[in-house]
Amino acid sequence: MKIRKYKHKNEVSYALGATLVYELLNCQPESITRVFINTKTEQTESIKRLVEKIRLNNILIEQSDKAFNILSPKENCFVIAEFRKTKKVLENGSHIVLVNPSDAGNLGTIIRTAIGFGINNIAIIKPAVDHYDPRTIRASMGAIFHSNIEYFNSIEEYIQRFPKNIRYAFMLTAKASLSKIDINEPFSLIFGNEATGLSNNYHDICLDVRIFHSSNIDSLSLPMAAGIAMYEFTKELWK
Amino acid sequence: MKIRKYKHKNEVSYALGATLVYELLNCQPESITRVFINTKTEQTESIKRLVEKIRLNNILIEQSDKAFNILSPKENCFVIAEFRKTKKVLENGSHIVLVNPSDAGNLGTIIRTAIGFGINNIAIIKPAVDHYDPRTIRASMGAIFHSNIEYFNSIEEYIQRFPKNIRYAFMLTAKASLSKIDINEPFSLIFGNEATGLSNNYHDICLDVRIFHSSNIDSLSLPMAAGIAMYEFTKELWK
Repeated sequence: MKIRKYKHKNEVSYALGATLVYELLNCQPESITRVFINTKTEQTESIKRLVEKIRLNNILIEQSDKAFNILSPKENCFVIAEFRKTKKVLENGSHIVLVNPSDAGNLGTIIRTAIGFGINNIAIIKPAVDHYDPRTIRASMGAIFHSNIEYFNSIEEYIQRFPKNIRYAFMLTAKASLSKIDINEPFSLIFGNEATGLSNNYHDICLDVRIFHSSNIDSLSLPMAAGIAMYEFTKELWK
Repeated sequence: MKIRKYKHKNEVSYALGATLVYELLNCQPESITRVFINTKTEQTESIKRLVEKIRLNNILIEQSDKAFNILSPKENCFVIAEFRKTKKVLENGSHIVLVNPSDAGNLGTIIRTAIGFGINNIAIIKPAVDHYDPRTIRASMGAIFHSNIEYFNSIEEYIQRFPKNIRYAFMLTAKASLSKIDINEPFSLIFGNEATGLSNNYHDICLDVRIFHSSNIDSLSLPMAAGIAMYEFTKELWK
C-alpha cells in the first residue's frame, strides 16, 4: 500500500514518534494498520520494548525510510504508526464544544487539556480543522486516542442531540465572570473560532461568561481560555 | 545598516507584522530604529494610519523586500519594526519565575497570559531561551512590550534579590492542590523546564503545589499550567 502525505479524505492517519505510538498501542491497537521503523533507528532498550509490544499485537512492521521522508521530512522521528480513522459518537455527560476551530495545533492542545481534566467528549461544529491531522495528534501528545470527538453541522444540531446540557458560552462581551458563576452539570463549555469568537446569537441560546483580564491584551489564546475554563469547572473532582 | 537574521548577540530584534508593530509603537516607540515596509503592501486605510503613526514618531521608513526575505521568508508579512533591545530590571511585587524555559513559542504564550492577568514582572533563570527571539515576540502577540523581564544566573540569586516574596513551586510531586492553597502576596509562581520540571530541592526552598489532573496525560503543557496558576492567583482582581 502506498504511503501518502496526510489528507482529510484519506482513510488512515499517522502517529509520529514513540510517545504517540505508545499511546495508540495502549488505547486502540486494533486500529493500527502498520508501523514504520526508520532504518537508522538505534536499538535502545525502549525501542526494543516498543517493537516487542507491536509484535505482541500482531501488527505489521516495515523498515522503511520512505515513510519518514514523506510524513516527517524535517524531524528526528524514528517510528510512525499508520492507523484507520474511526467515527466516534459523543456520549452523554459534560462536553467541550468548539465552534469552527481553525488551527490544528490549538485543537491538539485543547484535547490534551480536556483529557487531563476528564472531559473526554468534544463536539466540533463545522467548518473546522480535521482532528485527525497529524499536527493535531502530535499537539495532543496522544491524548486524542482517549477522546470521543464528533463533528456537527451546526450548533442547533448539537443542541437537539443534547438538550439537557447547560450551555456556557465564552464570550468577551459577556458580563458574568468565570470565577463567580454557578457550575451545574452536565455542562457544555462552548468556545468560538480563534479570530472571530462566537457570534452574538450565542448570548440568546447560552449562559454567557467571560474570563476577565487586563486591557493590555486583546484576549487570551483559545487553548488558554479553554484550559482555564475546564480547570475551574472540574477542580472539585481533582485533588 | 545591514539586515541580519536574528541572533542572541545582536543589539536589535524585530517585530513582525502590523499587530506587533502597533504594540511596539504604543509601548516603547523610542526603541524603534527603523521600520521596513514591503513594496507589495496595499495602501489600505489601516496601513495608511500605521505609516502616519510611524512618521509622527520620526521613525525612518525603508521600502525594502530584502528585510522580508531575510526575516520572514515564509509569511504574509507587510511591515517589520527593527528595535533596540533593552535591559530591564524586575520591580518589587508578584512575579512569574521560569526556570530554564527552552521553547521560544511557549515563552511568548506565557508572557501574553501574564500580561493578561496583570503580572508584568517575569524572572527567567538561565540557561534559557532568549525572550527577544522574534518567535517569542510573535507568540506574545506584542504583550512582551508591556513586560519587565530580567534574567538571573540561579534561583539563589533571584531569592536573594526578592527574599520577601512567597515562593510557590509547581511540581508534579507536590501534595498541595492549587485549588485549595492559601494565596499570599507578593507571590512568586515558579515553573520548571518543559521536559524536566523543577528539581527536588525546590521542595525545600518553596511551598510546593500542583494542579491535579487525570492519569491519562503525563502533565499539562508548561504554558497551560502557568496560565491556570496565574488565573487562580489573580482572579479576585479581575471581575
